[in-house]
Amino acid sequence: MADYHFNEKISLPFEKVYEWQKAIYMAAGMSEEDASVVADHLVMADARGVYSHGILRTSIYTSRLEKGGTDPKAQPSIKKQFGATALVDGNNAMGMVAAKKGMDLAIELAKTYGTSAVSVTGSNHLGTCAYYAQQATREHMIGICWTINCGNIMAPWGGAERQLGNNPFAMAVPCFHRPDIVLDMATSVVARGKIVMARKTHSPIPITWALDADGNPTTDAEAGYWGTVRPFGDYKGYGLTLINAIFSAILNNSSFGPTITDFYEEPEKIQNTGHLMQVINIDAIDDSLEFRKRMDEAVAYLKNGKKAPNVSEIFVPGEIEARTYERQRREGITYPIEVIEENRAIALRYNIPESLRL
Amino acid sequence: MADYHFNEKISLPFEKVYEWQKAIYMAAGMSEEDASVVADHLVMADARGVYSHGILRTSIYTSRLEKGGTDPKAQPSIKKQFGATALVDGNNAMGMVAAKKGMDLAIELAKTYGTSAVSVTGSNHLGTCAYYAQQATREHMIGICWTINCGNIMAPWGGAERQLGNNPFAMAVPCFHRPDIVLDMATSVVARGKIVMARKTHSPIPITWALDADGNPTTDAEAGYWGTVRPFGDYKGYGLTLINAIFSAILNNSSFGPTITDFYEEPEKIQNTGHLMQVINIDAIDDSLEFRKRMDEAVAYLKNGKKAPNVSEIFVPGEIEARTYERQRREGITYPIEVIEENRAIALRYNIPESLRL
Repeated sequence: MADYHFNEKISLPFEKVYEWQKAIYMAAGMSEEDASVVADHLVMADARGVYSHGILRTSIYTSRLEKGGTDPKAQPSIKKQFGATALVDGNNAMGMVAAKKGMDLAIELAKTYGTSAVSVTGSNHLGTCAYYAQQATREHMIGICWTINCGNIMAPWGGAERQLGNNPFAMAVPCFHRPDIVLDMATSVVARGKIVMARKTHSPIPITWALDADGNPTTDAEAGYWGTVRPFGDYKGYGLTLINAIFSAILNNSSFGPTITDFYEEPEKIQNTGHLMQVINIDAIDDSLEFRKRMDEAVAYLKNGKKAPNVSEIFVPGEIEARTYERQRREGITYPIEVIEENRAIALRYNIPESLRL
Repeated sequence: MADYHFNEKISLPFEKVYEWQKAIYMAAGMSEEDASVVADHLVMADARGVYSHGILRTSIYTSRLEKGGTDPKAQPSIKKQFGATALVDGNNAMGMVAAKKGMDLAIELAKTYGTSAVSVTGSNHLGTCAYYAQQATREHMIGICWTINCGNIMAPWGGAERQLGNNPFAMAVPCFHRPDIVLDMATSVVARGKIVMARKTHSPIPITWALDADGNPTTDAEAGYWGTVRPFGDYKGYGLTLINAIFSAILNNSSFGPTITDFYEEPEKIQNTGHLMQVINIDAIDDSLEFRKRMDEAVAYLKNGKKAPNVSEIFVPGEIEARTYERQRREGITYPIEVIEENRAIALRYNIPESLRL
C-alpha cells in the first residue's frame, strides 16, 4: 500500500462513497448483499482514518476478482460445527464476506455457550481485523480476530528470509459511554508500505524498520525493500506473528509459509487465507453493564494519569480512530484526490450507473 | 526479582528439589496436594531455565503465607458456570492452586464444547503463565493464559505514572515430535529486575528499557528505578498490556490500577489477582494428529531458513526452554548457591524433616 500526501483533498459523505463502492463490487460480479459487506468494510476503515485498508484497495481487490484469484459469486459454507466451535470454508469468496460470516457465527455460538472459536479457511484478504472484532462489541461482547497476512515479508528471529507475514490481529472490548477499546495491529514495527514510500523518495529509514536480504539491520530503504520487515519488540513480535499464523492458518490447513501466494503480485492465484474469530460473552462471566461501567472507569483512570513532557493527551487503543470516525461520519470523509481518481477510473470502466458516480 | 551471577553453582536432582519444596509449603500450612502443585510449578520453571520464576520466589511466597496476604488453606470454588465458560474464585489460595484449577476446568470444558474460557478471580501471583498453557498441550490442545501483574510498574503510552503492570501471557501449541511452541512473555522490554540489578551495579541501561519519573526515556538506572518500565514495541506493548488487564482482571472485577497491591512490598495485603484461561480443542476444528504433523513441518521450515550473520540456529518460542528442561531433568538443575542457601534457611526455620533437607 502507498502513503498519500494530502496535497489535494476531497471530502465525501459516507453514504455516497458506500453506494459508489457497492456499485463497483456489484459490477465486478458480486451479489448486492456481498457487495454491501465489502463496501461497508472499506468505507468504515476510511471513516476511522485507516486509509491504508479502505477504498485505496479497491484497485487490487477488483483486479483479483477479474483475474480469478477471488471468486465474486462464492458463498462461504460451514464445513464442521462442534459445540462452541466451527470451521467455515470461504470457498474463495472475498475475505470480508467469509470473515464476517465467521464472526457472525462466533457471536451466535457465544450467546449459547458463553465463548466461541470459529476457524475460517478458503478465504482472502479480510481488510481490517478491527471490523470483525467490533461486530462482537456491538453485542456487548469481547471480540478477537486473528489472520495470517497475504504475503511473506518477515524473517523468523535470527533469520534473513521472507518466511512469515506481519500477521495482524485485533482485540476489541466494549465500554459504556466511552468508545470501544480496539487494539488492531500488525506484528512488524511499521507497515511495509512505509519502506516502499521511503524507497520512492530516496529517504533513509530508521534502523528498527527493516533487515537487508542478508539479515543485517539497515537504514537504506532500497536494501530494506529487498530484505524483510522487522518484528515489533524483536523476538516478542516474531513469537506473536508465529502464534497468529498457527491460530489462523496452520490450525485449519490454510496457506502458510511456502504455500503463501502474494496478494499484490499474483492476483490470478487463489490464496486460501485463514482466520480465527474468538468471542467472549461477558454476561457469561459477569453482568456486562457493570463490566462496561468498570471499563469507562479504567479508561478515565489511564487518561487522567500524569503525562510525559509534550504529551497533551493519553489515549487508549482505538480512541483516535473512534474520534476520527465520529467527525468523518458527520462531516464527510476526507480523501486524497488520487484515491478518488483511481476509483473513478474503475467505476467508469465498469460503467456503473451515472447516478452513483462520484 | 534479582539476577544471579553464577559464580558458585550447585546441581540438584529435580525430584529432590521438588520434595524439598513440597515440604516447605506444607510446613507453611498448605495441604500435601496443594503444596505439590506449587512445588511442581516452581521446579518446572527452574528446570526450564526460567529461574526468575522458580524457587527463588519461595522467600516471598512463604512470607505472604505467613503474613496473611495469601491463605495456605484456601480452596478455590466455582462461582458460576455457563456453557463453555466459568468463573473460579481462588478464595485467596496460592495463585498456582487457583490458576491450575482454572485451567483444569478449561480443559474439561473444551473437551465438551471445543473451546472454553475460564475466568479466575481472588487469586495470587501465579508463577509462569507457560505452566498453565502447557497443561492444555499435554491434552493436544491449544492453551492460553492471561494474567494481570502483581504490581503497577508501567505508564500508559504518553504517560509518566505507574498505572499498569507489564502483564504477562502465554500461548502454547502442541507439536508432534518437536517440543511445544510456548510463547510466554511480559509486555515490558525487559523485566524490572534487570533495572534493579543495573542500579545495584551502577551500570547504565539501554534507552529502550525505562522512563524516568517525569516520563522521559533514560539511560540512568537510578532514574529508571524510580520511573516506569517501557512497554515492548512502544504503543503496541502498551495496548497488549491493557488488553491483558481487561481479560484477566477487569472482566471479573479483580484488582486493577488503583486497587493493585504490591506483591513484594505489601505481603500482608490480599491481592485479588485475576487470570483468564482459554483452550481450543484442535479436534473440534481438524484432526489433532494431522495438525501436530503440520506444526512439525512449520517448525522445520522456519529452522531451515537462511540465517542472519553470526546466527548459528533459528529458534521457535519455547524451544530453548524445552532443551534446557530435557538436559536438567536428566542431569540435575543447576542453581546459583544463593538461591539454595536462602531456601535452606527457610527449610531450617520451618524445621522440615531432616531427610528432605538439601
